[in-house]
Amino acid sequence: MQLTKQKVGVLGATGTVGQRFILLLAQHPNFKIHKLGASSASVGKVYKDAVKGRWKQVVGIPENIASVPVLECTVENFKDCDIVFSGLDSGPASTIEPAFRKAELRVFSNAKNFRLDEQCPLVVPLANDSHFGILPHQQKAQGLQKGFIVTNANCSTTGIIPPLKALQDAFGSLDKVVVTTLQAVSGAGYPGVSSFDIHDNVVPYISGEEEKIEAETMKMLGSLSSDGTQFQKEPVTVSAQCNRVPVLDGHTECVSLSFKQRPPPSIDQVKEVLRNYTCEAQKLKAHSAPAQAIVVHEEEDRPQPRLDRDHQNGACVHVGRVRKCPVFDVKFVVLSNNVMIGAATSSVMNAEIALAQGYLN
Amino acid sequence: MQLTKQKVGVLGATGTVGQRFILLLAQHPNFKIHKLGASSASVGKVYKDAVKGRWKQVVGIPENIASVPVLECTVENFKDCDIVFSGLDSGPASTIEPAFRKAELRVFSNAKNFRLDEQCPLVVPLANDSHFGILPHQQKAQGLQKGFIVTNANCSTTGIIPPLKALQDAFGSLDKVVVTTLQAVSGAGYPGVSSFDIHDNVVPYISGEEEKIEAETMKMLGSLSSDGTQFQKEPVTVSAQCNRVPVLDGHTECVSLSFKQRPPPSIDQVKEVLRNYTCEAQKLKAHSAPAQAIVVHEEEDRPQPRLDRDHQNGACVHVGRVRKCPVFDVKFVVLSNNVMIGAATSSVMNAEIALAQGYLN
Amino acid sequence: MQLTKQKVGVLGATGTVGQRFILLLAQHPNFKIHKLGASSASVGKVYKDAVKGRWKQVVGIPENIASVPVLECTVENFKDCDIVFSGLDSGPASTIEPAFRKAELRVFSNAKNFRLDEQCPLVVPLANDSHFGILPHQQKAQGLQKGFIVTNANCSTTGIIPPLKALQDAFGSLDKVVVTTLQAVSGAGYPGVSSFDIHDNVVPYISGEEEKIEAETMKMLGSLSSDGTQFQKEPVTVSAQCNRVPVLDGHTECVSLSFKQRPPPSIDQVKEVLRNYTCEAQKLKAHSAPAQAIVVHEEEDRPQPRLDRDHQNGACVHVGRVRKCPVFDVKFVVLSNNVMIGAATSSVMNAEIALAQGYLN
Amino acid sequence: MQLTKQKVGVLGATGTVGQRFILLLAQHPNFKIHKLGASSASVGKVYKDAVKGRWKQVVGIPENIASVPVLECTVENFKDCDIVFSGLDSGPASTIEPAFRKAELRVFSNAKNFRLDEQCPLVVPLANDSHFGILPHQQKAQGLQKGFIVTNANCSTTGIIPPLKALQDAFGSLDKVVVTTLQAVSGAGYPGVSSFDIHDNVVPYISGEEEKIEAETMKMLGSLSSDGTQFQKEPVTVSAQCNRVPVLDGHTECVSLSFKQRPPPSIDQVKEVLRNYTCEAQKLKAHSAPAQAIVVHEEEDRPQPRLDRDHQNGACVHVGRVRKCPVFDVKFVVLSNNVMIGAATSSVMNAEIALAQGYLN
Repeated sequence: MQLTKQKVGVLGATGTVGQRFILLLAQHPNFKIHKLGASSASVGKVYKDAVKGRWKQVVGIPENIASVPVLECTVENFKDCDIVFSGLDSGPASTIEPAFRKAELRVFSNAKNFRLDEQCPLVVPLANDSHFGILPHQQKAQGLQKGFIVTNANCSTTGIIPPLKALQDAFGSLDKVVVTTLQAVSGAGYPGVSSFDIHDNVVPYISGEEEKIEAETMKMLGSLSSDGTQFQKEPVTVSAQCNRVPVLDGHTECVSLSFKQRPPPSIDQVKEVLRNYTCEAQKLKAHSAPAQAIVVHEEEDRPQPRLDRDHQNGACVHVGRVRKCPVFDVKFVVLSNNVMIGAATSSVMNAEIALAQGYLN
Repeated sequence: MQLTKQKVGVLGATGTVGQRFILLLAQHPNFKIHKLGASSASVGKVYKDAVKGRWKQVVGIPENIASVPVLECTVENFKDCDIVFSGLDSGPASTIEPAFRKAELRVFSNAKNFRLDEQCPLVVPLANDSHFGILPHQQKAQGLQKGFIVTNANCSTTGIIPPLKALQDAFGSLDKVVVTTLQAVSGAGYPGVSSFDIHDNVVPYISGEEEKIEAETMKMLGSLSSDGTQFQKEPVTVSAQCNRVPVLDGHTECVSLSFKQRPPPSIDQVKEVLRNYTCEAQKLKAHSAPAQAIVVHEEEDRPQPRLDRDHQNGACVHVGRVRKCPVFDVKFVVLSNNVMIGAATSSVMNAEIALAQGYLN
Repeated sequence: MQLTKQKVGVLGATGTVGQRFILLLAQHPNFKIHKLGASSASVGKVYKDAVKGRWKQVVGIPENIASVPVLECTVENFKDCDIVFSGLDSGPASTIEPAFRKAELRVFSNAKNFRLDEQCPLVVPLANDSHFGILPHQQKAQGLQKGFIVTNANCSTTGIIPPLKALQDAFGSLDKVVVTTLQAVSGAGYPGVSSFDIHDNVVPYISGEEEKIEAETMKMLGSLSSDGTQFQKEPVTVSAQCNRVPVLDGHTECVSLSFKQRPPPSIDQVKEVLRNYTCEAQKLKAHSAPAQAIVVHEEEDRPQPRLDRDHQNGACVHVGRVRKCPVFDVKFVVLSNNVMIGAATSSVMNAEIALAQGYLN
Repeated sequence: MQLTKQKVGVLGATGTVGQRFILLLAQHPNFKIHKLGASSASVGKVYKDAVKGRWKQVVGIPENIASVPVLECTVENFKDCDIVFSGLDSGPASTIEPAFRKAELRVFSNAKNFRLDEQCPLVVPLANDSHFGILPHQQKAQGLQKGFIVTNANCSTTGIIPPLKALQDAFGSLDKVVVTTLQAVSGAGYPGVSSFDIHDNVVPYISGEEEKIEAETMKMLGSLSSDGTQFQKEPVTVSAQCNRVPVLDGHTECVSLSFKQRPPPSIDQVKEVLRNYTCEAQKLKAHSAPAQAIVVHEEEDRPQPRLDRDHQNGACVHVGRVRKCPVFDVKFVVLSNNVMIGAATSSVMNAEIALAQGYLN
């Protein structure tokens, strides 16, 4: 029985990711929005005024949040929170997140700053929550009792990790992974991508994105040492090509991969593993966990972003067109909702898992 | 000095490819539209009436073509043509094209039917015009004096062949090629893709497209035997993933490849070869040949379909983001105008080359 | 207390409107899907097979409907239904709907055929349910006990009727109405509008649409004679210009109008009337009725189709930018969800009202 | 015979309108780019570097302009120009344009600041070049010999003025005009409209746009007093509703209007007048003048932005669907290329006319 909800703060509450945090947390069984933080332009306003003209969600501002005052992102303002969710850009995140940790706050961050940090778990909640095991080490190394930083992955990395993890768990190490992404405009926030740039167009470049996929994948598919003090990178070779396409939400990714194991598993074995994959968030009955972590499509033309992105409130990933690859062993298409599991939903589900696993005691 | 223009027929003249033929041929220095053919719905009308409500070009119907009558696609109607360009769908093409050849007509076809035929050249005019050398053998095998069928490649294959050929010529055989396409809606003709399917969406499947890229590439990168009687397939392994994206014209393709040669060429060597590539159509000063066959972009976010597809009247291919691939040797982005070099422009340029090389005597 | 649900048949069940009927009726408190009908291509299949590759909804086929067999649309097949919802095109509707009525079936039709019929009510359920009063006359005139045809309006007419009716109720007859529409592609069904036609484009023409708005508005704003035997057209002059725009769902309509009453009401009075408008469906607590029939927006840039179309499950209409018109008295913007209140939701809500009002006894 | 070209300066040369000026003037028979000005971020760079990553045209930077240095927009820097074209935003335009005039420079401005000024002509070159007749008065009132400011209209006003002027010239004063616009995203410049706002959407509001159409139309349809010292506003009543739609270039406008003259002209008479309309720019053989000022379409679904916007290099306006209006006398659809005749082309054509009429002596 949950007697009291954890008090949560949301940093960057007025931005694109922040707005999603608000929607996910306004009526959450474990968490209760306690404090909202944003940049100086919003400080001193109540939430609904701070996002005036910038609230771009298809549902309205939750009534119980509309009049919450927006604060400056200082430790002083948030020190009585149990958890802080950060939707900050990497600029402000670079100083605010470590300052909050130092003040013994638990920070669940969407920013890129600490993803590759040796002490910080980088967790896609559908895949590698075992990396939370580094947290005691992080606290010890930082000289802290409670404070830590947990990060979730870049939106385009998030989509591919669950199927890659499922296959690695079943068939051993992957050898090579080639991925080409077709990413939605919402991934760039608001105002983000100019209509002038993406209308009737493809932009075959997203700054820093390919490097993130390549590095984050190696960390997340890797393991934590048995003493819980260091991450061992998985020696998989990853090559990514990233494109922006005129789609609002939902990243499509075309993946080809090979296994180290020879002969490789059959296509039917691959499909079965993906279909039967179950993650810890499901077993723990985390509030945001999808009923099915990986939805495998048999129709030849699915998944599609417009039709599939909102399935299970965007908390799962979709895999389709699983078939033999003439160059590697298997190829398939992945779809994930970049603003949900690719961003705020991952942070929140990470916190739900951490809570269930006792890391928030 | 060219005394008289070749009399050309256009089959499938009212369709999407056919309309492009009309625009390319209406004022051509070597060819003169002599006969127009289409399906029974159009037969008996003059051209402008036959395409009423279906002429979807940004320029109007050429005045000298507007009143040309549309005929049934019979040998009888077209027998006094020197050349026939076919924009027919594969259904009617399967019987009409061989019948026309048998009647000693030279057929330049966009249809897929004869692309992999052992006697028919499959030619991207910017790359493998040497395959025309099979034509005497085709004529002999068919017991013909003049008639033949020449095909050009599928639009998505067309884009990648020039850079692949340039690299193969310079650095020897390619080993593996992985390509993911982001294809424009115009590739599906008219009415083609429903707005309901592609609006705010990606469709990660185009029927038959991946197989075409994989098979056509092996034929076109291959060589013709020294006696001109058979094609030797290049043993390159190709894997394609094809997607439809909400772009009007212009196929974007993300390519990663490895060479057989070890060590592979450097990125600078690859760029230099692509930049300096010159094709036979340019040397022959073919009317439709671009000044530069492969345009290499140095900006980090180019090529882009909307900005680059109309360069050189869509007759070239664009390559950008040439860089090292962690998995293979090199990766880059290709853009080609699928309705120009990917379709009608290829047929017309093929005929220009064949004319210059004496195959139309 | 509702003891038993009405048994309903759905005609045209595999089409765009039919699919929406399925979603609205699969778990309805008053209605239970009993029979499904479609064209010969679907007959003999179970529903999920009949819509294979054509189910374009973001939620899946309801499980309890997936295996229902699809029947030919004959009286024999549907005679044990209490109600029939018709999503038929006007071609088949022209014979099937009257045949069904003649067989004593109650038909709620989306087709245009009987909208202007002197015996058939044309009802936007948020506005003129009083027109159901003609039903006894229709039955008598047709020599029937139970059978009738009820129609709902064209999608673009549907959006403007609630605000026009609200204003007419409050301030007396309208004099002139000028409306320009910006209509979504889903209004044309599937495959409907070719992406080639609407991509990066506006098509300033929709066949028959302007005439429908002009005629249907006069009927629906008119009254039923006191003896319930004839409709008196409202002598309002309406001029419509209709455009298709690249939006998936949601028709935007720019309206300017004048009142007969001089001086006209103030802008504040107009807003107040729109905001306070309550329709019979709300009072009857019809299952599909929105909590608010007309949502009035105060933000200067709303309503917008993408942000507002799904509010209240698309069962309401939105009005924004209510302001003085230099030429007429007032101008404003209307948004309605063309696939919901503009189509299937109207039929279903009409049946709910008719049920509550005793017309289905 | 033109002995020497006028030396022109371009202010705001790096912006969206400025880039169009560059393209229009790089090879102009009357004008020669002499100086380029932009904001401090660009000052000190050569043009091609100043627009790096912001050059969004489908043709490249003209070679003869690429290395021109970008200067601060000071009188000192531009004093040796004969003409200055201003693509400045209204902020900097408010001080720079009058300062340039005061320094005896001829300024042709796209900015809104002086459009309604009593001494400044507001001219759509296809319609009311007679307003240049105020220039001697402006110079006298300002105590100047050569300097003046000429403005061209807002892009959405520009489209409707030529047909309104043609009809007024032929049939006398217009009484009422109602116009609803569907405006392209390029009208907002770069980065302008966020893809997040306009993707799959309509925004029924453009700040200040409706007021501009209403006020500018009255000025431009009005006359200049016989002594050339004041504009007499035309007492036509105009009501505009403005929408942004997901189209790149090309504003569509739905117009309904009534004439003062009773009975009004017939639809055939209206069409004939529009079709036969000839403007002064054509008579003067101005370089940028279209061969046909108003293109009248007979097809029921034209004009369309994607198909018609580039006709005659975007220098004309298109009118289609001319038909009776149930509320007013006539209604029709107008299309104009907002980045060409709606912006830079108007400025340049205005200067061409002014040159031919002797105002630049």
